[in-house]
Amino acid sequence: MAAPLPREWTGIQTFPVATQNKLVELLGKLKGDNVDTLTILVMGKGGVGKSSTLNSLLGDRFFSVSAFQSEGLRPIMCSRTRADFTLNIIDTPGIVEGGYINEQALEIIKRFLLNKTIDVLLFVERLDAYRVDSLDKQVVKSITETFGKAIWSRSLLVLTHAQLSPPDGLSYEDFFAKRSQAVLRYMRLGAGIRRKEFEANPIPVVLVENSGRCRTNDLGEKILPDGTTWIPNLVKVIVEVVSNGSEPVVVDQQLIDGPNPNNWGKHFIPLILAFQYFFVIKNIRGRIKQDIKNERIPAWELRDMGRANGKF
Amino acid sequence: MAAPLPREWTGIQTFPVATQNKLVELLGKLKGDNVDTLTILVMGKGGVGKSSTLNSLLGDRFFSVSAFQSEGLRPIMCSRTRADFTLNIIDTPGIVEGGYINEQALEIIKRFLLNKTIDVLLFVERLDAYRVDSLDKQVVKSITETFGKAIWSRSLLVLTHAQLSPPDGLSYEDFFAKRSQAVLRYMRLGAGIRRKEFEANPIPVVLVENSGRCRTNDLGEKILPDGTTWIPNLVKVIVEVVSNGSEPVVVDQQLIDGPNPNNWGKHFIPLILAFQYFFVIKNIRGRIKQDIKNERIPAWELRDMGRANGKF
Repeated sequence: MAAPLPREWTGIQTFPVATQNKLVELLGKLKGDNVDTLTILVMGKGGVGKSSTLNSLLGDRFFSVSAFQSEGLRPIMCSRTRADFTLNIIDTPGIVEGGYINEQALEIIKRFLLNKTIDVLLFVERLDAYRVDSLDKQVVKSITETFGKAIWSRSLLVLTHAQLSPPDGLSYEDFFAKRSQAVLRYMRLGAGIRRKEFEANPIPVVLVENSGRCRTNDLGEKILPDGTTWIPNLVKVIVEVVSNGSEPVVVDQQLIDGPNPNNWGKHFIPLILAFQYFFVIKNIRGRIKQDIKNERIPAWELRDMGRANGKF
Repeated sequence: MAAPLPREWTGIQTFPVATQNKLVELLGKLKGDNVDTLTILVMGKGGVGKSSTLNSLLGDRFFSVSAFQSEGLRPIMCSRTRADFTLNIIDTPGIVEGGYINEQALEIIKRFLLNKTIDVLLFVERLDAYRVDSLDKQVVKSITETFGKAIWSRSLLVLTHAQLSPPDGLSYEDFFAKRSQAVLRYMRLGAGIRRKEFEANPIPVVLVENSGRCRTNDLGEKILPDGTTWIPNLVKVIVEVVSNGSEPVVVDQQLIDGPNPNNWGKHFIPLILAFQYFFVIKNIRGRIKQDIKNERIPAWELRDMGRANGKF
């Protein structure tokens, strides 16, 4: 079954002209490098603003944003073309539920992505959150187990709700520095990347403000508190990640089946079973047979068997 | 050991005069009802703004607010007096860690509260969060198991970060209605209160904005987007809860030890153990003795015991 032809990316026309020009220039740069398709995967916990960020990027309300409902379990892909360039954006449901990683959601995401190539992973978190706990690290660990460690060379950290008022006594810059350091730290630990390696290839951090009340500059472009036009900046960093020399992640059957670094021990299972059979079970079995031969069955048990006073 | 005399509540003087007057009037109303002490307990997840809310209420930075650090495990109490009225405020650490209820933190909170009387529970959540999951319900369940269901007759729901911009397509009123409904629903389910009972005695909801950038009115009082002066409003609702006819919660040894409604079955444990002994274990023991008597120990095992070819 052939995939339907992607629709024209008309959403780009909803942006102010200044933003449109920057985006066209950035995509032109990619085409100059012979990149004519870009597949962006978005992951993170529920309610952090994944779908809203994608809608902001598309200039469209393609992805349904339901502030107070859990998402479904299926990923959703939106494909758009513009001047022979194809943009594929894959939104995924949050993978945490009730304090646990939702393994079912991860499994469905994996199968959905079979035979697709991921060019960039947007890992989404809120800027305006104040705590990191071990479950956050677990989210990153699960993504790493699903797609391999290499996915992080193709990733950026997107922090939403960027137009916040920091708590008393902290400047915006300090707040941003502390929060992004905290998130990057749990990402590094969850991905199992050594500090030196991580510092040599840092994961870029991008701020995003999806609210309709995001401030704008004189040209009508949405800006961050420091004046950055954040939509072109997000696309710019995506283009940088795509061009950083690392390989995109191909989701093939082998990646899906393993070898999973956490259960490589499973190759020994047949050997262990054989060992158990010859050295443990056969022995026990022999002794049980011996026991049965010697045993006197108590009267009440024989009675239940309808053979009171008999011998087995 | 006598408790140290509480310090004068000087923080009240940091409020605008209009706020001070309202607070004095509300506390005067309590004194008129012969209430001269008010003990407020604060609970909720980490990072929702418990300590910030208490500091706002005190007009003081008594409770340390560490945006990016987990709190310690111990509750902290602040006592202040004003005109023969004593205000005790007890801040507690967040009771969720790594996707689990932190039972250790709960245990420490319980012991800290021994022989204290809780007049009001402030259950704190963020207004600007978008998802509710089963862990949230579990938090309420744990509080209910710790202090009994009656604590909820003495509680109010405090929603922080009230000065938010709702996501596109939702008015502030709609956002508030949906979020507070979602939180009240998981509170009802977690506390195990029937819908009718809950509707007959609804838990009041109060909005709070602790940011230094909270808007103010002409009198300098901090206001919510709808113009409500939120500090006097919070105290007003606290006074209403104290006067609603329900009993304060006395944390005595009996409450701490149980009977916990979830493990009343433990009274049967000695009975079950006795049953097991007389009807199961004695029987098995007898058969094992019989087996040992009849058993022929294999040669290799006797060899290991240094008695090859012998008989046990």
